[in-house]
Amino acid sequence: MNDHPGLTLATFAAQLDFGSIPPAVVERTVNLYVDWLGSALAGKGARPVETIARFARQAAGAAANNGPCEVLIDRSRTTPYFAAMVNGAASHFAEQDDVHNGSVFHPATVVFPVALALAQATRASGRDLIVAAVAGYEVGIRIGEFMGRSHYKVFHTTGTVGTIAAAATAGRLLGLSPVQMLDAFGSAGTQASGLWEFLRDAADSKQLHTAMAAANGLMAAQLAADGFKGATHILDGAQGMAAGMSSDADPARLVDRLGSRWATVETSFKYHAACRHTHPAADALLAVVQAHRLAPRDIAKVVAHVHQGAIDVLGPVVMPRTVHQAKFNMGTVLGLVAHHGYAGVTEFEQGFDADAVVAFRDNVTMAFDAEVDAAYPARWIGKVTVTTTDGRVFNGRVDEPKGDPGNTLSRDEIATKLHRLAAFSGAATEGEAARLLGNAWQIAGQAQVGLVFDNAHAQADSTVSA
Amino acid sequence: MNDHPGLTLATFAAQLDFGSIPPAVVERTVNLYVDWLGSALAGKGARPVETIARFARQAAGAAANNGPCEVLIDRSRTTPYFAAMVNGAASHFAEQDDVHNGSVFHPATVVFPVALALAQATRASGRDLIVAAVAGYEVGIRIGEFMGRSHYKVFHTTGTVGTIAAAATAGRLLGLSPVQMLDAFGSAGTQASGLWEFLRDAADSKQLHTAMAAANGLMAAQLAADGFKGATHILDGAQGMAAGMSSDADPARLVDRLGSRWATVETSFKYHAACRHTHPAADALLAVVQAHRLAPRDIAKVVAHVHQGAIDVLGPVVMPRTVHQAKFNMGTVLGLVAHHGYAGVTEFEQGFDADAVVAFRDNVTMAFDAEVDAAYPARWIGKVTVTTTDGRVFNGRVDEPKGDPGNTLSRDEIATKLHRLAAFSGAATEGEAARLLGNAWQIAGQAQVGLVFDNAHAQADSTVSA
Repeated sequence: MNDHPGLTLATFAAQLDFGSIPPAVVERTVNLYVDWLGSALAGKGARPVETIARFARQAAGAAANNGPCEVLIDRSRTTPYFAAMVNGAASHFAEQDDVHNGSVFHPATVVFPVALALAQATRASGRDLIVAAVAGYEVGIRIGEFMGRSHYKVFHTTGTVGTIAAAATAGRLLGLSPVQMLDAFGSAGTQASGLWEFLRDAADSKQLHTAMAAANGLMAAQLAADGFKGATHILDGAQGMAAGMSSDADPARLVDRLGSRWATVETSFKYHAACRHTHPAADALLAVVQAHRLAPRDIAKVVAHVHQGAIDVLGPVVMPRTVHQAKFNMGTVLGLVAHHGYAGVTEFEQGFDADAVVAFRDNVTMAFDAEVDAAYPARWIGKVTVTTTDGRVFNGRVDEPKGDPGNTLSRDEIATKLHRLAAFSGAATEGEAARLLGNAWQIAGQAQVGLVFDNAHAQADSTVSA
Repeated sequence: MNDHPGLTLATFAAQLDFGSIPPAVVERTVNLYVDWLGSALAGKGARPVETIARFARQAAGAAANNGPCEVLIDRSRTTPYFAAMVNGAASHFAEQDDVHNGSVFHPATVVFPVALALAQATRASGRDLIVAAVAGYEVGIRIGEFMGRSHYKVFHTTGTVGTIAAAATAGRLLGLSPVQMLDAFGSAGTQASGLWEFLRDAADSKQLHTAMAAANGLMAAQLAADGFKGATHILDGAQGMAAGMSSDADPARLVDRLGSRWATVETSFKYHAACRHTHPAADALLAVVQAHRLAPRDIAKVVAHVHQGAIDVLGPVVMPRTVHQAKFNMGTVLGLVAHHGYAGVTEFEQGFDADAVVAFRDNVTMAFDAEVDAAYPARWIGKVTVTTTDGRVFNGRVDEPKGDPGNTLSRDEIATKLHRLAAFSGAATEGEAARLLGNAWQIAGQAQVGLVFDNAHAQADSTVSA
């Protein structure tokens, strides 16, 4: 087979080994894994997530809960396919899972559900899980960049491109050859789907997108391992993904510095529990509020200076009716930040529609900013103009929102975030979360990836606390 | 909720009842169902189909084969989700399943897997199955027409639009309300996928497309029944299907004469076992060959005058390497017709790469024809120019290829086709096929849809033949 960018990328994913990944990349990947666990736990009890979980139990049939793979929201056990589906649904719900700026792609929520499920099913080592996850991140980020900004205008990149990231992760754990990996890309890419239209109605599709990206990607890799052929040019062919769903695709991005540029570590942690497009302005507002000691009632209006992508995604959400929709409303996020200094899951749940937040929201507008737009998506600059009730005008700016690679979260901050998310959803007690964390930080050294929730310990704990 | 074309269509699908469907439409739907059974049986033993079947067994877990729904290729039993998936994969393999010309959409292979599986699971009546199938055909055909010719250039409409057709069928059997049906459309449409790129490599994606259109559509309806919300404007919204995947969408087509125009009966049966784009020319060649009593060796060259869509789909296949790819090669199809008078599954399997057929193939070219193209896709006109070795030139023409609504197959011809397909794949003995047919023709009168293969009878039969 002649070499081409898709094959080069598939070969990289198939042949990636632990020794070739720099230690700093491994360490960051562990952090991303632990951060993902928190997001997966946060999905417990969320209606769309629980609905997908019920569907999965029904579709698998009576003996579903006998598989080797853990469903994190309820600690049930099932097959890799359904574990990937439900954990994929769960980990995108709180809007706290990670994001890669340049590709506007959320890798963790499609990569780790597959990595964990297949590692548990195949008794893989922690190193194998890390290598497979890095393969998924590197592949997904580059394909996201390849598909370009035109794709993201209509398509939810995490749903579309995420399917191939999931396939790369699954394919690496299954030990696919380069040609089989390309087959997996083909079967994944031809299933790539996910439209932004749902956001206008506060519909539940976002959970469906990540659930099925994970499940379909895993399916694509399992089929490839069994000889199922995929299109070799699914990415750049005349009737492939870019031809159908992009007008500015750049094939050079697919193989950009493979093996020397580690896109995985460019991934940002999400500090606020809202759409990432709101974070730069939120941090810029926080800087103004703190520097000038402004109370919310001191602020007459805020203009958030944003890139076009933020207007495309957030623009349709004018009057949020649900918590989830509120996470896509700039005014609500800035209102929560002005009032609480933070827009976390608890702040949203308890206050997105509080009178004071709604009043603040109505004083927030977005304005297209040429500098911010030109820097995007490589850099997500935050700029706000705040006008106070007594007529003062302050300009705030951040060049790297909290959680970005140059302003990353510490392990303590990640642990705190997981504790908050687990407590919020009730997916784990504080003791369980602490034990789970102790185990998860050691993942790269484990000879065999076990259960996230160690039942023996959990039972011992409940005995103690009884 | 304000009325709009998508809601009108969803309401139609949700409220369709048996009494409002004209008897001739019911009768034709029964014929389409029986025709589909033949195609589903034909998939037995086909590598891509069996690979998906193995995946389904693995994904469902150990106790998969305990469900209420029949997998037709091996008579195993599973849940509706996996039965829809495997029967959907199976029934598009032989390229003999039905097609609606105007929408270039193959309804049966995504509608009937869902209709049968859910009817078996819910103990629905034959009338319920027929109503659900008609809902799927009417919805899918109109959405296919809505998405337009631009969509079909890159996307496999049966995979994309088929997901919503499957959701309509499932939704009707689950008794969804109009608003729930619209939710199902939303969750189905945001999963719509399927790219033509696979055809260039003779990859296996076509089976994946129909398998997942059926399974995802069923999933969308089951989720909707459980309260999962979908985008209300998934079809025509600013970030919906047409926005992302069409440049000539026409919303008026979504509601074109709902309840008075029955698109179901516009569906064509496929007589030849090849891509439908080859059929008009095949029948036109057959007319010339028969009128002038030409042997294959008398023919020096053939020009097939075709619409642009035929060139788009068939053009990439120059040197077919597999039976499946050969079904998308105009020269091979015309070669088989010239030699055997028919291009059926057996003719392909035994002769697609025979020297004489390959030699004939290399004397066939396609040429764009303005009249054929202008009539397409409403009418699929066949025109060929045949030049004989002794210099005569004959023009052949058919206005309705065999199997089209004005030139439809009789029940005897459908039965003969099923017998051929079952014998070809070995999915049923002649006696089993005859019994299955006797039962299937009566489907509309059955109080409860049972198994296609009646085990008690089958066992009795094997005793007799032993």
